[in-house]
Amino acid sequence: MTEALLFDVFGTLTDWRSSIARETKEILAPLGHALDWLAFADAWRGEYQPAMEEIRSGRAPFVKLDVLHRKNLERILPRFGVAPLPEATAQHLNLAWHRLDAWPDVAPGLTRLKKRFRLAPCSNGNIALMVDIARRNGLPWDAILGAEVAGDFKPKPRVYLASAEAFGLAPSDCMMVAAHSNDLKAAAALGLATAHIARPDEYGPGTGEATPKVPVDFAATSLEHLATQLGL
Amino acid sequence: MTEALLFDVFGTLTDWRSSIARETKEILAPLGHALDWLAFADAWRGEYQPAMEEIRSGRAPFVKLDVLHRKNLERILPRFGVAPLPEATAQHLNLAWHRLDAWPDVAPGLTRLKKRFRLAPCSNGNIALMVDIARRNGLPWDAILGAEVAGDFKPKPRVYLASAEAFGLAPSDCMMVAAHSNDLKAAAALGLATAHIARPDEYGPGTGEATPKVPVDFAATSLEHLATQLGL
Repeated sequence: MTEALLFDVFGTLTDWRSSIARETKEILAPLGHALDWLAFADAWRGEYQPAMEEIRSGRAPFVKLDVLHRKNLERILPRFGVAPLPEATAQHLNLAWHRLDAWPDVAPGLTRLKKRFRLAPCSNGNIALMVDIARRNGLPWDAILGAEVAGDFKPKPRVYLASAEAFGLAPSDCMMVAAHSNDLKAAAALGLATAHIARPDEYGPGTGEATPKVPVDFAATSLEHLATQLGL
Repeated sequence: MTEALLFDVFGTLTDWRSSIARETKEILAPLGHALDWLAFADAWRGEYQPAMEEIRSGRAPFVKLDVLHRKNLERILPRFGVAPLPEATAQHLNLAWHRLDAWPDVAPGLTRLKKRFRLAPCSNGNIALMVDIARRNGLPWDAILGAEVAGDFKPKPRVYLASAEAFGLAPSDCMMVAAHSNDLKAAAALGLATAHIARPDEYGPGTGEATPKVPVDFAATSLEHLATQLGL
């Protein structure tokens, strides 16, 4: 019986694309830059999977996502014609990922779901990043689990298993909630229940998964919809 | 500048003695036992430091506090003339530590403190134990840090340092809040600020530390008092 819900965060709970474009513009426009801000967000996010793959494969030791984001930022700045930034500016820009906005259904949905279930992010983001997003958006987590607790990145099995263990639960007592079928597929292979949340506009209008590409236990259009399906 | 507050939980935030006596009575009295319930709570707690010392010293590998509590329970049951319990009963009794009541100032105090500071337990209790206490008492943690994240037990330095690192903060940007001077002494040695909370009745009337035995940055009689001293 499901006792805990584990959530993907980038895309599933937060609109990283608009948020990163907004934050980047706020920091770089006053310095005289006029970039395609959404393209910048996409490029930064584009470096995400390759950077984690170095660690998932064992070629590099685990580091927090904040560290990978910074490395990826340094990689894309020249591509957009931005010269090396003063250190304080680069640090502030890098923490744009801590200032993501949640989709509007997330805080009310989690508040309903918390009545019955223990709730934690199971994200590749680090603890401080998750804490800042939660404080900004009023997300009522019971604990912050995921990559930093596991010392590896999804979809490696260890991340899902460590999150269940931290709650003192078997994988089959947990449900993974995500907008991405590959995340749900990895969780289901370990015995977790799964819920898909449609975020069709994640990478821009009509780009996300409107429906799951794998079998799931629940398919919802929002966290509020999921709460309703779960009787809350 | 202090950005995060880290809290001891057993004694500082929760009245473990009355709670364990109550839970033990609720479970064992219907089985025909008539123990000195407070003495049972004291005996169970009495095994706490020796059990952790095996791990702190490196003689045994790290395990969650739930595991140590169970081992300690098995050790004291015969001492009180209680025969081995059915496994389900023993498990339920062992999780009595998940059902501790917070002192009355804790939830309102944390709610005020959360306005300005990131908040986490830095306890020797495991994550699931902290989550259950928080849900029972409405404690608005930003993250669950402490022993399980560090893989060791206080007052080993690693526990305080891992908690600061998880928040992405230097030790000097964190304040340890505890009712026990040895906890505050260990934290201060690493550069954390410290706040002492008086819990004079922790082990029974007049047994706890009414005032700190070491220099501290703040000395308060409750979390509400601490919030006031911090201008909240």
